[in-house]
Amino acid sequence: MRATVMYKAGDVRIEHVPDPKLLETTDAILRITRACICGSDLWPYKLLKPVDNGQRMGHEAIGVVEEVGAGVRTLKAGDSVIMPFAFSDGTCAFCREGLHTSCVHGGFFGVGGKTDGAQAEALRVPQADGTLFRLPVRADEALMPALLTLSDVMGTGHHAARSARVGSGKITAILGDGAVGLCGIIAAKRLGADQILILGGHEDRVALAKEFGATDVVQERGQAAVERVRALTGGFGAHSVLECVGSEQAIRTALGIVRAGGHIGRVGLPNYEAIPALQPFFYRNITVAGGPAPVRAYISELLPDVLEGRIPAGRVFDRTVGLEGVPAAYRAMDRREALKVMVQP
Amino acid sequence: MRATVMYKAGDVRIEHVPDPKLLETTDAILRITRACICGSDLWPYKLLKPVDNGQRMGHEAIGVVEEVGAGVRTLKAGDSVIMPFAFSDGTCAFCREGLHTSCVHGGFFGVGGKTDGAQAEALRVPQADGTLFRLPVRADEALMPALLTLSDVMGTGHHAARSARVGSGKITAILGDGAVGLCGIIAAKRLGADQILILGGHEDRVALAKEFGATDVVQERGQAAVERVRALTGGFGAHSVLECVGSEQAIRTALGIVRAGGHIGRVGLPNYEAIPALQPFFYRNITVAGGPAPVRAYISELLPDVLEGRIPAGRVFDRTVGLEGVPAAYRAMDRREALKVMVQP
Repeated sequence: MRATVMYKAGDVRIEHVPDPKLLETTDAILRITRACICGSDLWPYKLLKPVDNGQRMGHEAIGVVEEVGAGVRTLKAGDSVIMPFAFSDGTCAFCREGLHTSCVHGGFFGVGGKTDGAQAEALRVPQADGTLFRLPVRADEALMPALLTLSDVMGTGHHAARSARVGSGKITAILGDGAVGLCGIIAAKRLGADQILILGGHEDRVALAKEFGATDVVQERGQAAVERVRALTGGFGAHSVLECVGSEQAIRTALGIVRAGGHIGRVGLPNYEAIPALQPFFYRNITVAGGPAPVRAYISELLPDVLEGRIPAGRVFDRTVGLEGVPAAYRAMDRREALKVMVQP
Repeated sequence: MRATVMYKAGDVRIEHVPDPKLLETTDAILRITRACICGSDLWPYKLLKPVDNGQRMGHEAIGVVEEVGAGVRTLKAGDSVIMPFAFSDGTCAFCREGLHTSCVHGGFFGVGGKTDGAQAEALRVPQADGTLFRLPVRADEALMPALLTLSDVMGTGHHAARSARVGSGKITAILGDGAVGLCGIIAAKRLGADQILILGGHEDRVALAKEFGATDVVQERGQAAVERVRALTGGFGAHSVLECVGSEQAIRTALGIVRAGGHIGRVGLPNYEAIPALQPFFYRNITVAGGPAPVRAYISELLPDVLEGRIPAGRVFDRTVGLEGVPAAYRAMDRREALKVMVQP
C-alpha cells in the first residue's frame, strides 16, 4: 500500500510500504477513506531531524474496518468509524473519567514508534474497541469533512473551550486562526459565549472566524494585542482564553489578556520552556489548564450537532488531495496558502 | 501607640509611632485586639533589604472599630470585626465575583507603602465597608483564635482546596505543614475528601495534621516523596494538590504527585521563577490554579462552622505574646520552634 513518510524537516514522500497486519488481538485494520494534515504535523515539517527509514505521518481519519483481532468485541469488518488522534482502551481509570489521552494502554498515531500514521491507504489501530467510534448511521457524504474534524481539531477546540471554562456571559478570546482556533470559535459559541475575540491576521481566516461566531478581530500582536483586547473588554480582559498556538508569544499574550480570576485553556503543543510563575499568573488568580484533548470522550457529545449541521467545522478544509498530493499539501499549509488539507487516499 | 517595624532581615522592633488617623472618608480606625505572625512574614524576615524608616508588619487581625470616616455606612464605633489581609471596596466587578484580592480599589496590609500593619495597637483600614467583616454576635472568647484564622490562614487553606477542586471521592495531598497547610487539611475534610495526605516532617505538626483529618503522612522529600505518594494512591497520584509552601521544590513535587487530569491549588507565594510548561503539566492535562486568597469572600461561608466549633483552626496557635514579645516570636517561628504566634497588643 502507499503511505506518507517524513524523512526530515521538509522531506515528505509517498512510498510503497507493506500492508498493515494485526499484531495484537485487540487491533483492527482500518481502510482509510479520509485523512488530513494537521497544524501539529507542521512542527516536524519545520524541525524533524533525519530519521532512519522515516516516520509515518497522520493521526486523523475516517475509515472502514477491514479486519479485527480475536479480542475485538464491538466492531466488525465493514463498520464506518472515526479514528481519534490517540488510541485508548476505553476501560482504564482515566478513560472512565473521560481523559482518554492519559489511557494506561494508550498512545498517539503518527509520531513514530510502533504505531504508524493515517495519511496512508490503511492503518493498524491498537485498542480498537476503545479507540474507534462507530458511526451510528451511514452518514451523508456531505457531512464527512465535519465528521473528520471530530478526530482532532473540533474535539481539540472544544477541549480548549472546556479547559478555559467558556460559558454563558463569559468573554472569550482565542489565540490562533488555524483550524483548531477556528473550531474553538464554534465550540465557544456552542457553549454560550456571547463576546468572542479572535486574535489572528489572515484575511480568509478572519472571514471564516466571523461566520463561525467571532464578534471581534484583533490583528495586533504582542503588547499591542494585549492593549486592544483590554480596550474591547471593558479594561479587564477575557474570562476565558483558548491558547491554540503553543508559541512563547502566544502563552505570554494569553497571560496578558486573561482577566483576573480567568482561565486559560492550552491545546497548542507548547513550543516554549516554562510559564512565569508569579505575575500575573499567581497574583491575578489565573488558572492554566488543558493539554492533549481527549477527543474520543467528546465525540458522543458533539456528534449529534454535527449530524444536524450545527457544527460547520468541515469548512476548515479548503483543499482536498489524493495521497500523491500530500507532499505539496504540507508545503501549502506550511506557507499558509492552505488552511487545512483533506486527504482521500 | 506601639507598632511592629521591620528594618531589614532579622531586625524586628516594637516602636512608638503616631496614632493612625482617618485619611479617606471610607477609612476606619481599628483598635487591634488580636493579631498574629504569618508564615509569609518570614519571607521578609529572611530576605528584606534595609528599609529607610522601616516597614510596618502584620496583616491578620480581629479588632474593635474606634472611629469611621464620613463615607462609611455599615460600621460604627464599637463594632467587633475580622480584618482580612487585603482591603477591598466590596462593590467592584471583582469583589462582586468573589475575587476581593483583585479589587480595583484594593491592596494589602503590612507590605510597605501607604498602608500600615496589624501587629500594632491600632491601624487605619481603607475601604472599611468592603473590608471589615462585622461579627454578628459577641463571639465567645474561646472562639477568638479560630475567628482570627478567618483573616488569612483558614481562608487561604480553603482557597487552596477550592482551587485544587477538592471534593467527595478525591484523593487530596497537601504540601506544607505550616498553618496554611494544616488549615488546608480542615478545608479538604470539610469539602468531602476522604484520603488526605500531608507532606511534611515536623512531629508536633504531624500530630495536629492527623487530628485535623490527615489520613497519611509522607515525610520523604523530592523524588522519594513523589514515589511514596504514588504508592499510597494506587500508582496515579492525587486528584487535588494544595501547594502551601511556594518553593521551587514544592511546585515540582506538586507536579510530580498530581494525577493526570488533576488540579494544583497554589497559595504559597511563589519563590520560584517559572513552571515547566510541557511535561507533566501539559501532557497530563494538569490544571494549575490559585493565588492570593479572597478570604473576605469566604468568611460568610466559613463563619457558621467556626461558631459551631466545626473548624478547629484556632489550634494552629501554639503561643500568645504581647507586642513586646513580637521580635522573639518572629525568631521562634523562623526556627520552627513555634507554629503560629498570636499577638494581643
